[in-house]
Amino acid sequence: MSELRHDPVQKRWVIIATERASRPQDFHLEKGNWTGREACPFCQGHEEATPPQIRAFMDPSRPGRWLVRVVSNKFPALRIEGDLERAAVGQYDRMNGIGAHEVIIETPEHDLDLSDLPVEQVAAVLRMYRERILDLQRDVRFRYILIFRNRGAAAGASLEHPHSQLIATPVTPRTVSMELASAREHFAVKERCIFCDIIAQELDTQSRIVAKDSDFVTWCPYASRFPFEMTIAPVRHQADYATMDDGLAMALARHLRDVIRRMKAALDDPPYNFILHTAPAYYLQQRRAGYWSTIEMDWHWHIEILPRLTKTAGFEWGSGFYINPTPPEDAARFLREVRP
Amino acid sequence: MSELRHDPVQKRWVIIATERASRPQDFHLEKGNWTGREACPFCQGHEEATPPQIRAFMDPSRPGRWLVRVVSNKFPALRIEGDLERAAVGQYDRMNGIGAHEVIIETPEHDLDLSDLPVEQVAAVLRMYRERILDLQRDVRFRYILIFRNRGAAAGASLEHPHSQLIATPVTPRTVSMELASAREHFAVKERCIFCDIIAQELDTQSRIVAKDSDFVTWCPYASRFPFEMTIAPVRHQADYATMDDGLAMALARHLRDVIRRMKAALDDPPYNFILHTAPAYYLQQRRAGYWSTIEMDWHWHIEILPRLTKTAGFEWGSGFYINPTPPEDAARFLREVRP
Repeated sequence: MSELRHDPVQKRWVIIATERASRPQDFHLEKGNWTGREACPFCQGHEEATPPQIRAFMDPSRPGRWLVRVVSNKFPALRIEGDLERAAVGQYDRMNGIGAHEVIIETPEHDLDLSDLPVEQVAAVLRMYRERILDLQRDVRFRYILIFRNRGAAAGASLEHPHSQLIATPVTPRTVSMELASAREHFAVKERCIFCDIIAQELDTQSRIVAKDSDFVTWCPYASRFPFEMTIAPVRHQADYATMDDGLAMALARHLRDVIRRMKAALDDPPYNFILHTAPAYYLQQRRAGYWSTIEMDWHWHIEILPRLTKTAGFEWGSGFYINPTPPEDAARFLREVRP
Repeated sequence: MSELRHDPVQKRWVIIATERASRPQDFHLEKGNWTGREACPFCQGHEEATPPQIRAFMDPSRPGRWLVRVVSNKFPALRIEGDLERAAVGQYDRMNGIGAHEVIIETPEHDLDLSDLPVEQVAAVLRMYRERILDLQRDVRFRYILIFRNRGAAAGASLEHPHSQLIATPVTPRTVSMELASAREHFAVKERCIFCDIIAQELDTQSRIVAKDSDFVTWCPYASRFPFEMTIAPVRHQADYATMDDGLAMALARHLRDVIRRMKAALDDPPYNFILHTAPAYYLQQRRAGYWSTIEMDWHWHIEILPRLTKTAGFEWGSGFYINPTPPEDAARFLREVRP
């Protein structure tokens, strides 16, 4: 059983995953675990190589074949069964590593990235995110449901078959708490969404816009930490990703595929992460239980795309400050002008 | 001129270093820039290859030869000349990239790491940190002086000759502000130093202690983010690294060399970062100007050592949460028992 531990100085939770590699010699193996199709547990026909299936969208034209498949992570950071058993350890805090850790297999095709798939297939993946979030939001042990995608060994992917991951955590992650605190503060004073205000300023300024259609906008953030970092958000205010309808999911599929293709063309297929920041489950649960909450007004879901081009070194770890060698205005211009 | 930009949601400053690599094709070169002795700008005899010298400790027994040498970074993230010109940009904030970015060349020897040097030489490096901090603390434009060390390409080092870096920033970095807020809160209620309390608990628990002598203690933090992460702190309360006397610097040299050697023996010479968190210059400046401040009581300087064994992926970037596969109690036991 893994454990969540809290640091009283940095006010940060850490998952101590005792069932993973732990001896010094294990780390020399952590170079990435690239398998071909033959040994790939995520390929069609290898379903018995994964933990039990949680959910799948089936191919209506080919009986028995799946299009998108969700399974538990074989090496979960957090486990679904059990109680949290929150406790103090002197000045520290701990709880059991309860949560969910799932893998969303995005296609039966081994060699394609998400952005290579037909737009309908990308939309199916995005609808699957919604299904899993809706399901896990009902579990009141979970404070947050984070969906993310690691592509390329340098971005932390250990398998090459296209997949995303979902981790549901029993505490709200620090990054989200921080964004939420800023959004709340802004809303409390102005009764406006901070993300809507940022989108309005970006659309007005234009120089950091990468792509825009009637439903979505992508820009390089003013204070981008990383070169070619991008944020995608719905143009119309929406707090909870899981309330997105099928039409909007299709529009997002088209938009997301386009901006990932632009990034790949501009940067020669870089390793990258993307991360969905939807509204914290905790506040949605409170709202649904009838308590007063501004969550539907102050939060605005968004996706961060982070190409992994630079190394994070002592300065960044020590300060939380980042040095970004590419002005976001330059990055956005490259991404706008490139032919995907 | 680089620029500091502030993100209103994450409340984070970023340095946009416009004079560094910025075109997409530049990133393919970022593999590390390893040169042999011949082309090394930090070797004895190559002094003309660096920007002008800021300070040096000379070898008393060999006239004209230096032992430790400080120069400006050739590609500085921040520049010393100019005014901050703080300004709002709509909802965002910016200022000029004013600061200091120095390189501390730790030895004339190209092939040795800090932990391979004689203890007197390590002490000279640690005294040089003190000298540079004392000097830069006098510049009231600087809010923080961060000293850090990147060792190995995977830890972000671009030159192999042993060196540390110093960056003085015109804002207090977020990581330090966060630690300071916790320390202040703790002190306000208890009139005790939070770090002293943590050291007392660690010494009492014993299981996370790596090394201890009469002056310094090293432990693996209870909520370590990374496998084999260590914190070093003086046993007796001291807020400002720069107030350390020569005797304590010698004790630190001995202690630091020992724990780095242990880490290298246990983990087969891993890439690593270390980072000094001394008291924020801003509060020391206020104190010295006669204003009331608890900085000397609530802060306790410490060094973080981070071996770079795992990759940081989408989950970590998206949540600020870390997954650590090695319980710190196991890491500490390995580090205690290994023969350096």
